[in-house]
Amino acid sequence: MTRIVPVIMSGGSGTRLWPLSRLASPKQLHALVSDMTMVQETVRRVATTDEGFSFEPPLIVLNAAQHDLARHQLEVLGVEASHFVVEPFGRNTAPVAAVAAEVVRQQYGEDALVLLLPADHHIKDDVAFHRAVAAGAELAADGHIITFGIQPDRPETGYGYIRRGAAVGAGYAVDAFTEKPNRERAAHFLEDGRYYWNAGMFLFGVGTLAEAMQRDCPDVLEAAQTAVREGRRVDGKILLDEAAFAKSPSISFDYAVMERTDRAAVVPADIGWSDVGSWEALWTIAEKDQDGNVARGDVHLLDSRNSYVLSSGPHVGTIGIEDIVVVATGDAVLVTRRDRSQDVKRIVDALKAGERSNLL
Amino acid sequence: MTRIVPVIMSGGSGTRLWPLSRLASPKQLHALVSDMTMVQETVRRVATTDEGFSFEPPLIVLNAAQHDLARHQLEVLGVEASHFVVEPFGRNTAPVAAVAAEVVRQQYGEDALVLLLPADHHIKDDVAFHRAVAAGAELAADGHIITFGIQPDRPETGYGYIRRGAAVGAGYAVDAFTEKPNRERAAHFLEDGRYYWNAGMFLFGVGTLAEAMQRDCPDVLEAAQTAVREGRRVDGKILLDEAAFAKSPSISFDYAVMERTDRAAVVPADIGWSDVGSWEALWTIAEKDQDGNVARGDVHLLDSRNSYVLSSGPHVGTIGIEDIVVVATGDAVLVTRRDRSQDVKRIVDALKAGERSNLL
Repeated sequence: MTRIVPVIMSGGSGTRLWPLSRLASPKQLHALVSDMTMVQETVRRVATTDEGFSFEPPLIVLNAAQHDLARHQLEVLGVEASHFVVEPFGRNTAPVAAVAAEVVRQQYGEDALVLLLPADHHIKDDVAFHRAVAAGAELAADGHIITFGIQPDRPETGYGYIRRGAAVGAGYAVDAFTEKPNRERAAHFLEDGRYYWNAGMFLFGVGTLAEAMQRDCPDVLEAAQTAVREGRRVDGKILLDEAAFAKSPSISFDYAVMERTDRAAVVPADIGWSDVGSWEALWTIAEKDQDGNVARGDVHLLDSRNSYVLSSGPHVGTIGIEDIVVVATGDAVLVTRRDRSQDVKRIVDALKAGERSNLL
Repeated sequence: MTRIVPVIMSGGSGTRLWPLSRLASPKQLHALVSDMTMVQETVRRVATTDEGFSFEPPLIVLNAAQHDLARHQLEVLGVEASHFVVEPFGRNTAPVAAVAAEVVRQQYGEDALVLLLPADHHIKDDVAFHRAVAAGAELAADGHIITFGIQPDRPETGYGYIRRGAAVGAGYAVDAFTEKPNRERAAHFLEDGRYYWNAGMFLFGVGTLAEAMQRDCPDVLEAAQTAVREGRRVDGKILLDEAAFAKSPSISFDYAVMERTDRAAVVPADIGWSDVGSWEALWTIAEKDQDGNVARGDVHLLDSRNSYVLSSGPHVGTIGIEDIVVVATGDAVLVTRRDRSQDVKRIVDALKAGERSNLL
């Protein structure tokens, strides 16, 4: 039976959910959808299966600043991690994939599969997710590099799209990857029916990946393998060698591998996926009260509707608001119209420009 | 020349401007309209005059919890206060007036006038204010007890109204005081033309007041005079005797004196008055930027309009909001539709009911 090792990429420092998500405590380390943090949810999702196969203990990739907090969260959960891999700095996802493949290869051999998962996505239907992984595993064992495709339900301009080609097993060959489209193209993709959202979740054999990277991005592969080989193993974690890791270009798995390889395949995954990429997205997937509100923390909503109100510290009172997001922390507060919440980036950019790094 | 001693009542603990205004640092000790705090503005307003008379140094009445902060604010201003009078607890405005009259009588004699002023009102036109005081002083020297009447410009239901009677000097006899009216009556008052808002500012001779109180509310007078007589004079302040002061009923100057006496007169005062009784009121009187926003403190407004955003601590970012009030302090945040800001009382009541006194 093929071994599947989940690799959970928890090194991100996204600020799309500012002011809660911060460099030192990013989105994936917060309880946003349930009582578990996103990384806990992601680990829990691969701790049991119901499709006749099981996952190996996960490998968690994170950065040094988050290590203690993330490790504490996983200990609380009672999940044993096979390894923690600590990045000295971020180099995007391609080197992470190569590092993970090398670590898994050393432990499980050339035939093991890596299931590469972002730590900050929400998946509603675990059973469907496991089914999609099972379908992908057969293709991956045959030498394909799998991406999971989400059926679009709106003309979203915030994601890349995948156009499927000929059927291959339970999936399809990838005909093309696209950049984030404008509104018009996104509407066209939605109507066309052959397009999926690229969810950033991948499945591949470690031998397959090494071969593909050797051909398509050997510099990434070389840097990653050296960073593992020369890294230090301390206290259950692998500290990647900084000098070696620095030699990798900072590049995404999509650009470095998926768009270049002839082994790409897409497996449709109808799993209730959300990348929780904005407060609006979070409001959409959260359970709401009878007035359409989501209220978390020490908050008091009066005559308020269809709003998202969260506090990690101060008492928040709202009166008469509608379609508003309020997020309050000890040192920063965001108040935005719900449908403008993606523009939080502009607030964050202003803080960067003002060198207010304590607020990032 | 008659001496006029401004008595500034700064003992209040209003929560209508929660969460900024708190028991220990109430509204009058905050800079809300200008760079000065409300009590500083009030003191400054009576520090110079331009109508051919001058004020004596003011007497400041405050409660023990606020003493240090208020005193510091006045020292910074460089204004010499003749006395601070410290209330052991609040007993509404009638005992404050009697206490002030007694203190002023001891220093200046029976003929001195007291100008009794709340510390938390905004007056835009100082010259007109001084002119109204000068007009009132003539009537007060003749034995009238003066209230200043504000010409209504809207059917406000939040104030008491005064109906004027026959002309007396520069003012009018008071025909009637009314309770806060409902909307319909308020509209009627506005149309009638003989009604003024009762602004809670009074002017009277100390001998006149003692006579009136002796007849209309002798228990208040007795308690107040004893509290002064048996109070301790320490470090430039008078600490009222607690046991004596406790014997006064808690009653407003309006009820105890103005509505009972036959000496009441009203002097119209077109002075740009606001009691700053809600965040909406504060937005109305404040200078706005070109988008109609008022922004104070560490705040960043993006595509926002006609909103009031204030922070005394955290960084506040807003995106796309309109007609919203956001007030953020270190431990509490209010977000309300502007025209609902008077309902902050309901948030405060909930905090009281929940025994969350640290937030009050």
